[in-house]
Amino acid sequence: MMNKKKSLQIGLIGLGRMGRTHLRHLISQVKGVNVAAVADLVCRKEDFNNEFGEIPFFNDAQKILENPRIDVVVITTPTSTHKPLVEKAIHYRKHIFCEKPLDLSLEVTEELLNKAASAGVKLMLGFNRRFDPDFMQAQQSVAAGKIGRIQIIKITNRDPTIPSIEFIKTSGGMFMDFSIHDLDMARFIMNKKIVEIYAKGLVFMDKSVEEAGDIDTALITLTFEDGSYAVIDNSRKAVYGYDQRLEIFGDEGMILVDNNLYHQNILYDKNGIHKALPLNNFMARFERSYLKEMQLFTEAIQSGLPLPVSHEDIMAATTLAYAAQKSLQSGMPVKL
Amino acid sequence: MMNKKKSLQIGLIGLGRMGRTHLRHLISQVKGVNVAAVADLVCRKEDFNNEFGEIPFFNDAQKILENPRIDVVVITTPTSTHKPLVEKAIHYRKHIFCEKPLDLSLEVTEELLNKAASAGVKLMLGFNRRFDPDFMQAQQSVAAGKIGRIQIIKITNRDPTIPSIEFIKTSGGMFMDFSIHDLDMARFIMNKKIVEIYAKGLVFMDKSVEEAGDIDTALITLTFEDGSYAVIDNSRKAVYGYDQRLEIFGDEGMILVDNNLYHQNILYDKNGIHKALPLNNFMARFERSYLKEMQLFTEAIQSGLPLPVSHEDIMAATTLAYAAQKSLQSGMPVKL
Amino acid sequence: MMNKKKSLQIGLIGLGRMGRTHLRHLISQVKGVNVAAVADLVCRKEDFNNEFGEIPFFNDAQKILENPRIDVVVITTPTSTHKPLVEKAIHYRKHIFCEKPLDLSLEVTEELLNKAASAGVKLMLGFNRRFDPDFMQAQQSVAAGKIGRIQIIKITNRDPTIPSIEFIKTSGGMFMDFSIHDLDMARFIMNKKIVEIYAKGLVFMDKSVEEAGDIDTALITLTFEDGSYAVIDNSRKAVYGYDQRLEIFGDEGMILVDNNLYHQNILYDKNGIHKALPLNNFMARFERSYLKEMQLFTEAIQSGLPLPVSHEDIMAATTLAYAAQKSLQSGMPVKL
Amino acid sequence: MMNKKKSLQIGLIGLGRMGRTHLRHLISQVKGVNVAAVADLVCRKEDFNNEFGEIPFFNDAQKILENPRIDVVVITTPTSTHKPLVEKAIHYRKHIFCEKPLDLSLEVTEELLNKAASAGVKLMLGFNRRFDPDFMQAQQSVAAGKIGRIQIIKITNRDPTIPSIEFIKTSGGMFMDFSIHDLDMARFIMNKKIVEIYAKGLVFMDKSVEEAGDIDTALITLTFEDGSYAVIDNSRKAVYGYDQRLEIFGDEGMILVDNNLYHQNILYDKNGIHKALPLNNFMARFERSYLKEMQLFTEAIQSGLPLPVSHEDIMAATTLAYAAQKSLQSGMPVKL
Repeated sequence: MMNKKKSLQIGLIGLGRMGRTHLRHLISQVKGVNVAAVADLVCRKEDFNNEFGEIPFFNDAQKILENPRIDVVVITTPTSTHKPLVEKAIHYRKHIFCEKPLDLSLEVTEELLNKAASAGVKLMLGFNRRFDPDFMQAQQSVAAGKIGRIQIIKITNRDPTIPSIEFIKTSGGMFMDFSIHDLDMARFIMNKKIVEIYAKGLVFMDKSVEEAGDIDTALITLTFEDGSYAVIDNSRKAVYGYDQRLEIFGDEGMILVDNNLYHQNILYDKNGIHKALPLNNFMARFERSYLKEMQLFTEAIQSGLPLPVSHEDIMAATTLAYAAQKSLQSGMPVKL
Repeated sequence: MMNKKKSLQIGLIGLGRMGRTHLRHLISQVKGVNVAAVADLVCRKEDFNNEFGEIPFFNDAQKILENPRIDVVVITTPTSTHKPLVEKAIHYRKHIFCEKPLDLSLEVTEELLNKAASAGVKLMLGFNRRFDPDFMQAQQSVAAGKIGRIQIIKITNRDPTIPSIEFIKTSGGMFMDFSIHDLDMARFIMNKKIVEIYAKGLVFMDKSVEEAGDIDTALITLTFEDGSYAVIDNSRKAVYGYDQRLEIFGDEGMILVDNNLYHQNILYDKNGIHKALPLNNFMARFERSYLKEMQLFTEAIQSGLPLPVSHEDIMAATTLAYAAQKSLQSGMPVKL
Repeated sequence: MMNKKKSLQIGLIGLGRMGRTHLRHLISQVKGVNVAAVADLVCRKEDFNNEFGEIPFFNDAQKILENPRIDVVVITTPTSTHKPLVEKAIHYRKHIFCEKPLDLSLEVTEELLNKAASAGVKLMLGFNRRFDPDFMQAQQSVAAGKIGRIQIIKITNRDPTIPSIEFIKTSGGMFMDFSIHDLDMARFIMNKKIVEIYAKGLVFMDKSVEEAGDIDTALITLTFEDGSYAVIDNSRKAVYGYDQRLEIFGDEGMILVDNNLYHQNILYDKNGIHKALPLNNFMARFERSYLKEMQLFTEAIQSGLPLPVSHEDIMAATTLAYAAQKSLQSGMPVKL
Repeated sequence: MMNKKKSLQIGLIGLGRMGRTHLRHLISQVKGVNVAAVADLVCRKEDFNNEFGEIPFFNDAQKILENPRIDVVVITTPTSTHKPLVEKAIHYRKHIFCEKPLDLSLEVTEELLNKAASAGVKLMLGFNRRFDPDFMQAQQSVAAGKIGRIQIIKITNRDPTIPSIEFIKTSGGMFMDFSIHDLDMARFIMNKKIVEIYAKGLVFMDKSVEEAGDIDTALITLTFEDGSYAVIDNSRKAVYGYDQRLEIFGDEGMILVDNNLYHQNILYDKNGIHKALPLNNFMARFERSYLKEMQLFTEAIQSGLPLPVSHEDIMAATTLAYAAQKSLQSGMPVKL
């Protein structure tokens, strides 16, 4: 019988862009779950029900946290609210899916992870890149030894447009907000300890980013324990769209992960041969990874197996983002 | 107010592979509709509700056809049942979406279309290729004049595996079942009258197909009224997967529509440079077109605007499939 | 010792574009040959020697034909002069390389081939496409069984610009002048007898071509003895350059031969992803095939092994070009 | 009259692989030059004349250096002989083309350049990558502003096989022998001053390389005066062939230079879509650049215009190779 295993009861807090995406997936494409309630500070109940149907809705997250029927909370609120919400969720013994970053402070991050662990609460951060079918395929090929021992990996992550200065000011900076995905990706692919990081960065495009104390262009070099290297290049603005590529070089071959384009049409005219641009929006590009992430998270909760993003993964990526900042400031490689 | 326009009430009949696909889309991704009831001869109500939730379900299509609250029926049953179901739907004044072919007989097809028209019932056939984003993009580029006046189009449609002989026996033959999509595509892209068809075909791969009176390989040449050409090549079995390509050559350029691959990883090893295979299943390849088709069908019903597949489109493609059969038998081009 | 085999003494007649190309190759890149003399009706001796050095030069072909030291004549003069030159070369027992076509008349073609055969003179026509590295690679892959039994081949041959009307008037028509390469390619790849040809064609682009009694766009369907098909599409003008592609579909796979581009740079900008155009000139595109052709021709002469283009190949391609013309005029498939 | 400008008289010294390549080009494809004499210590005169015809040949370079008719010497001997040969060539007032490196010592390099300059002798080093059509195209696109202001460039240079240990021992090390091409390429594309270099490297594949005191894998980060970056990744062994790629990212777009493959055939079979390997040999890959390099060098000598590789280019690349070595040893970025 299909019903032997009871559905996981989900409460979602925060109805921004990410919240809506996860909610749609939880309603119609993630199996074995039920959205028991949704909370958002500003959305009107009537509008919510018009859009998502008769799911219980509140303007107060507490209504979700204290609901004894709810097993899991999905937190998709602004970063500054993560700490209190996660602490309450731990208090009420809810398992937690939280969007990244857990917190801008490394100490708070560690503290929250430890609290969750002590309380037996499972907590996972949305390092969604790992769940993209193309990157997963690359990781599996590497793990299967298809290209032998890895020597160099190169990660390209470039945004199509500079975020608003308001966002940048509260983002924790480019390394913590943006490069952290690539730091996690390097670890995901290599599955090895990183012993050195050297980060360069500056403002190339928008002086207001500099005034906000941030950078818009970065180059990060990582050295793994076995001497292999990773290079991450980041930009906040690529005019041709959202550039998400990966190259992995080993002693038996190389894997390239190329961009996902808008369509597969090729136009030949008197000026050249033209293809479509890369999908220029992280929602479109990583739609499938957000779904896969939520599917694997909820399956891990139900099965009791390890989460696909571990506490060690969260701490390591966050620590690397901090070390990158330190390297940028000192102009020197930082040993880890 | 969003609610001014009442939701379209849908009844779906037939829970095979296509029925399930349309049903999933109607439930969660097509806006402005409500699935009021579903019928299938063999599925058990309990299993249905376990899978799709508390939608009213019947083992008798009549329960849907006679329900006065239902505006539209979606018919995804075997071809042999289309005629009686469509006739009853017309009787009860339901608008109709029916999977192709409407009927294996050209006369019956015309008769049903005429009856629907007389009764003021809207009827559309599932020529889904038109709604694939890549092919739509190509058609729009052509319509926008990007490659000038079209001279030659080449359509490749190759299945990954030969269907069962049971299916082949009732399919109406390769032209009616398979090539009909390409005949419709040629018309969709060119938007011109076809004046001649020349079809070649034989069994290359499986003698049981020949015993069933069908072919597994075909080559069809079309001549349009302005002298331009289309070539369609079909195979029931391509070992590398489902091959869906299109080439359009005009006096100001060319458009190629390439296959959709499983992923965007490229493996370099000592034997060569390797990419993933094309998506090898029509459900995966045309998932987006099935959704778009249903969205545009229901929007047209609600808005009162013309359906995106007209009666003329249906008659033309069906007539061409018949003419292809006649050409194959005579070994001569057939004028239309 | 390298010198055991005496160098083949070559006389070249006709210093047009093709003559110059062959001459450069014979001087510096074809081994085991010596250019003994060159003749051209109009070129001045002084200009010739300035360009090519101290090779004996004449304004009279007879000086080459009657020279007893010369083993081989390379004939690169206008088509109308081929018959008398070839006849004289046969008379003087010179082996012959002649640019295509041998003659516009099928009867004359056959007669010249028979005369050469009777006299023990080797005669080869410049079906250069066979010697292009990409097409040779495709043919070898097919012959090695890499894609199993072939079912469909598709040949695209499109010129970048319409030739002058003067040329068209004496060219023998599009099939004899242009499509003949593709008819030969179909035979080269398939190595099977063609039993039917169906040719469509018209003027799409330049009415003066029509006034000259020719066409600028064609579509030719071939049926091989085993039921497999070839489709050839031709145009005298593709705005994006010289389009030379080949697709071969078999029951174990498919081979595509793509165009050769000007360079391997890819430009990403806000409008799309752009690649270079195909090499837009037959001299540039087939430079390597002209060289390989001459190397294999002279090696075959020296070794006594069969020529890489046989008399049967010449007659078959020429016969097919004639049959294409007949099919175009009758509007019917022609059996062979 | 074509002969107004007298041919440049060339003497070539050293008949190894590079010497033969330049000699073939000088004989048949470089205009306005005459190979007056060739010298090699070990090649036998008879063998030379059998291969290259009746060009004067000597086993003693002095015969070339002291020949007053000779304008230019092309030096393609082992690195250790460059210094004495260049000095003598300067003494005899011959212009000089010398293969890289000029000398393993930075001081000697500078001294030789200065001597040549003082003597009015033109001296150019074979930084051939600059003359590859694909890289030239990329440089021209950048210079034309097609992708705006450059922020990041990424250079991949990977050899197909590890050179012999004997070669490695006398090569000057990976940076001086191999990466120097990429250091020059970074300057060629960016046309800006480099202010910092950070080099990582180790032996990944062959312990005998380590015993010879060299590395087989390297990652070099460059910072330009305006804050833009270059990353060079090098390997002595890529199983899939000679990997030569370039990526240039600017604020208005990106240029990728991809590899040159053996052929343009694409094979689809049940395992995937397969393309040919990159040309796996520097002679084949850079054949066209060696020719272009010699053409532009001899044209510059004849016209009196600046050489396409300046003394500053030579010193800069050599200095960078030294600095890379220093960075590798210290584990720290080196300021320049």
